[in-house]
Amino acid sequence: MAVKDKDLKGLTVKKAEDFSEWYTQLIQKAELIEYSPVSGCYILRPNAYHIWEKVQAYFDGLIKADGVKNCYFPLFIPESLLIKEKKHVEGFAPEVAWVDYGGDTKLGERLAVRPTSETIMYDAYAKWIRSHKDLPLRLNQWNNVVRWEFKHCTPFLRSREFLWQEGHTAFATQKEAHREMYTILDFYEKVFSELYAVPILKGRKSEAEKFAGAEITLSVESFLPNGKAIQGATSHHLGQNFAKAFDIKFVDQNQKEQYAWQNSWGISTRSIGVMILMHSDDKGLVLPPKVAITQAVIVPILFDATRDVVLKEAAAIVKKLEKKDIAVHLDDRDDYSPGWKFNEWEMKGIPLRIELGPKDIEKKQAVVVRRDTGEKKFISLDKLEMEIPTLLETMQKDLYVKALQLLKSSIVMVSTMKEAEKELLAEKLIFAPWCGTPKCEEEFKEKTGAKSLNSPFEQPLLKKDQKCFACGGKAAVWFYFGKSY
Amino acid sequence: MAVKDKDLKGLTVKKAEDFSEWYTQLIQKAELIEYSPVSGCYILRPNAYHIWEKVQAYFDGLIKADGVKNCYFPLFIPESLLIKEKKHVEGFAPEVAWVDYGGDTKLGERLAVRPTSETIMYDAYAKWIRSHKDLPLRLNQWNNVVRWEFKHCTPFLRSREFLWQEGHTAFATQKEAHREMYTILDFYEKVFSELYAVPILKGRKSEAEKFAGAEITLSVESFLPNGKAIQGATSHHLGQNFAKAFDIKFVDQNQKEQYAWQNSWGISTRSIGVMILMHSDDKGLVLPPKVAITQAVIVPILFDATRDVVLKEAAAIVKKLEKKDIAVHLDDRDDYSPGWKFNEWEMKGIPLRIELGPKDIEKKQAVVVRRDTGEKKFISLDKLEMEIPTLLETMQKDLYVKALQLLKSSIVMVSTMKEAEKELLAEKLIFAPWCGTPKCEEEFKEKTGAKSLNSPFEQPLLKKDQKCFACGGKAAVWFYFGKSY
Repeated sequence: MAVKDKDLKGLTVKKAEDFSEWYTQLIQKAELIEYSPVSGCYILRPNAYHIWEKVQAYFDGLIKADGVKNCYFPLFIPESLLIKEKKHVEGFAPEVAWVDYGGDTKLGERLAVRPTSETIMYDAYAKWIRSHKDLPLRLNQWNNVVRWEFKHCTPFLRSREFLWQEGHTAFATQKEAHREMYTILDFYEKVFSELYAVPILKGRKSEAEKFAGAEITLSVESFLPNGKAIQGATSHHLGQNFAKAFDIKFVDQNQKEQYAWQNSWGISTRSIGVMILMHSDDKGLVLPPKVAITQAVIVPILFDATRDVVLKEAAAIVKKLEKKDIAVHLDDRDDYSPGWKFNEWEMKGIPLRIELGPKDIEKKQAVVVRRDTGEKKFISLDKLEMEIPTLLETMQKDLYVKALQLLKSSIVMVSTMKEAEKELLAEKLIFAPWCGTPKCEEEFKEKTGAKSLNSPFEQPLLKKDQKCFACGGKAAVWFYFGKSY
Repeated sequence: MAVKDKDLKGLTVKKAEDFSEWYTQLIQKAELIEYSPVSGCYILRPNAYHIWEKVQAYFDGLIKADGVKNCYFPLFIPESLLIKEKKHVEGFAPEVAWVDYGGDTKLGERLAVRPTSETIMYDAYAKWIRSHKDLPLRLNQWNNVVRWEFKHCTPFLRSREFLWQEGHTAFATQKEAHREMYTILDFYEKVFSELYAVPILKGRKSEAEKFAGAEITLSVESFLPNGKAIQGATSHHLGQNFAKAFDIKFVDQNQKEQYAWQNSWGISTRSIGVMILMHSDDKGLVLPPKVAITQAVIVPILFDATRDVVLKEAAAIVKKLEKKDIAVHLDDRDDYSPGWKFNEWEMKGIPLRIELGPKDIEKKQAVVVRRDTGEKKFISLDKLEMEIPTLLETMQKDLYVKALQLLKSSIVMVSTMKEAEKELLAEKLIFAPWCGTPKCEEEFKEKTGAKSLNSPFEQPLLKKDQKCFACGGKAAVWFYFGKSY
C-alpha cells in the first residue's frame, strides 16, 4: 500500500478514468496520508496536517470573535450517559468503540470512545446553567472522535477516527439558537469558499438525513468532478431534546423555570478530502494558495560555472517574498535534476514554481509556472515581489470560479422520476419539487442509489398543485439530490 | 463535588494549612476544572484551556522555527505493535486502556488507546526512512493520551487522560540527536520561565526514573510552596533501541546501512497544575499576565446619577488598552456589587483590576490593583495605556523572582542520610553526592518517601573519595532529591 518518496513516478491512472485509484495514489504520493496498522485509521502527514492547521486558525478566529470559547471534555463517555437521549444513541451505538479494560482490570462500566460529545458535555451544562444570566453558554472543542465504520473506509472521507471541532451551545430562547445555527453555517461556507476555494450549496437536510437527536440540521454540500455530492459540515438545532434528557433548566427573568435551547455544529478533516478531490489533477495535488504549506518553490537551474550567482539571486528572491508573507522554499538539493524537482512539487501541489537559471539572470527575469493551469510567465526580477502575491490571489479565485462553473453546470431541475434517473446517470445533481417524507426518500434511495442533499433557504415558488417528482404525492419543498459519498 | 458560580464564596481553607483541599476548591471555584462522570478524567473549562492554547502557540512557534513539523497519528495502537520494544511495553502495559469492541463486533486484535505514540509512529518511520537524505525526520503532534492510573488522580497533576505534545525525531548521528535533546529542554525551560513564571531545575534523570525505552531522560523540575517537587516536562534520547525494534535503517553517505538515532519529548497539561500551585493564594488563582485570558478587568462603580459618564470613560479605557494589545474586560453587570466582582476576579486570577468611580473621574484617575501583591496604585487616566503594559510586565517578572527565591532558599546541600532525612522533613529539596544505582535509589525511596529528581549539567566537583550520601558507596554525581508528586 505504502508509496516511497524515492519511487515518486507520477500517478499511473487519470482522474477522469479511475477516480478512486487516482485518489488513493495521489494522497500517498503527495505525502498527505500514510496507511496505519489499524484498518480505517490513517496517518495525517505534515502536508495534510498543515491544511488542518490553516482551517483551525481561520475558523477559530471566526467563532472566537463571535463569542465562543474553547474547552476540552474527556474522550470517554460512560455507557449510561451515552444512552440518555434515545434517538441520539440509536444513531451512534452501532459504531461506538468500547473500552472494557484499564490495564488488567475490567472496568465497572464500559466506556464509549466519544463518537461526538453531546452527552458528556450536556451532563456538565446541567450543572453550570441555573439562571438566564448563565446564558448563552457557547463552547467549542477541537478534538478527535471515533466512529467504527463498517462501510468501506477512505482516507479523509470516511475514517474510523477523525479530527474535527464540535461546538455546543445553549440559549435562553429558540430565536437566539436559530440565529446562531445560521451564523455558523455561514462560517462553514467561508471555510470552503475562502480557504478551500470550494463552492457549496447551503441548506436544510431532510427528516431522514438529519443528525440523531436534532430538530433541524443545516449543511454545506459540495459537488465533485466525478458527479458525486459530498457533505462538508453541519450545523444542528437540537431544540430542547437534550435539555430535557439532561435536565438543563434555567430560571428566566420572570422567575419561571425553562429548558434551554441548544445547537451543536462541526467540521472535520473530511473537508480536506473534498478540497483534494475538487482541484487536483493527473499530475497530483493542487493546493489553493491559502492552505498551501509552501506557496512558491524556487527551483534553480545549476551549472558549475554559474552556480553561485544563481543561488545568490535565488536567496535574494526568498528574502523579498518572505517580506511579503509568502511561504517560499528554495529547493537547492544537488542530487535531483530540475525536471525531477518540477514533478515532485507538482505532485505536492505547490501553487507556484519559480525557475531560475543563468540565462534568466542575464535577462533579469524568472520563469513562473502556475500549478493549476500550467501557464508560464516571464517576470522581471524586480517585479517578482509585486507579481507573486497577485498571482497567488488570482489562482485562489480561479480555482473557486472553475469549481463554481462545474457546480452550476451540473445542477438540473427535474420534475419527474424518469428525468431524475436520466440526469443522475449523466452524473448530474438534481433539483426537484419533493414531498419530503422519509418513506419517499427511502424508496428513491433504493431505486437510484442517490440521496437527498439539502434544500436551499431561498426556494423557487412551488406551483399550487405541484407533485412530488418521486412519489407523485404533494410537493412541499425544492430539494437537491445526488449520488454521494 | 461541583461548585456553582452563584455560590462563589471564597476558599474555605488556606494554602498553608491544607494544600490539597485548597487546590481542590480553587480549581473549581476559579472555573478551571469540572469533575466528569469518568473517574480520573477532568473537564478543562475555558479558563484552563486558554492557558493551554497559550502554551501551544508559544511552544509550537519555537519548534517550528527549529524545523519540526506537525502531524497526526491514530489514537489506537494494535497490541502486537505496542509490545515490540520490551522495556517500553513493560513501562506502559499496566496502565493501558483497551478497546475490545467496535459496535457489537469483537475486534480481531485488541487496541490500546495510546499512552504515548512511539510504537505507532516508528512503525511508519521505518517505511519513510531509507536514505540519509530522509534525515533528520522531526515530527510533533498535539493530542490526547490515556494512562489508566490507579493511584490517586488529581486534576492537571495526575489524570487518566491528558493533553500534551509529543515530538518524535530521527537522526543520522547520535551527536545531532543529543544536540536536539538539549535544545528542546531549553524550550521547555522557556515555557516555564517565560510563560508560567516558574523557575525550574534542568538536568538528567536517574537510571530508575528514566523513560521506559530511553537511553537518557532529561527533565525540568519545579519546587512547590508545599515542599514538594514536580516534574514539568521531559526530553528523551532513545539511542537506537526503538530503531532496532522497528527496523528504522538508512543508507549513509558511504552506502552503509545504519540504524537511526532517535529522541522523543513532551510537555502536558500537568504543567498548568504546576503553575497554579506555584503562584495562587488564599483568595484564589493568580495568573501570570502572559497566560491570562483577561489581563485587566475594569470594575466601574455605578450610581444612577453618574452611571453614563463612568461607563463612557470605562469604554474609552477599553479601547485604549486594546490598542496596546492588552486583553481587557469591562465588567458592567448590573446585578452584582463592586465588592462581589472584586472577589470574583480575584478568584479567577485576573492580573490587574481597574476600579473606576465618579470620584476617580473627577480626579482624572483610576485605581489599579495588582492581583499578586494587592498593591493599589492611582494612575491618571491619560497614563493608563502606558502604565498598564509596564505593570503587567513587572508582575510577570515579580512572580518569577518570588518563585525563584523559594527555590533557591529550599535547596540544601547534604552529604549524609541523617542530614537528608532532617531536611526532607523540613520540606527542603536536597542536593547530594550520589552513587546513582537503582538499588540505592529504591532503598532511599522506601526509607524517606522522597525520590531522585535530576542531576544538573553543571556539576560541583566531587571530592576524590566522596561517598554516596545514602548508601555510603562511591559517589558518582551530584543529584537533586525531594518529596514529589
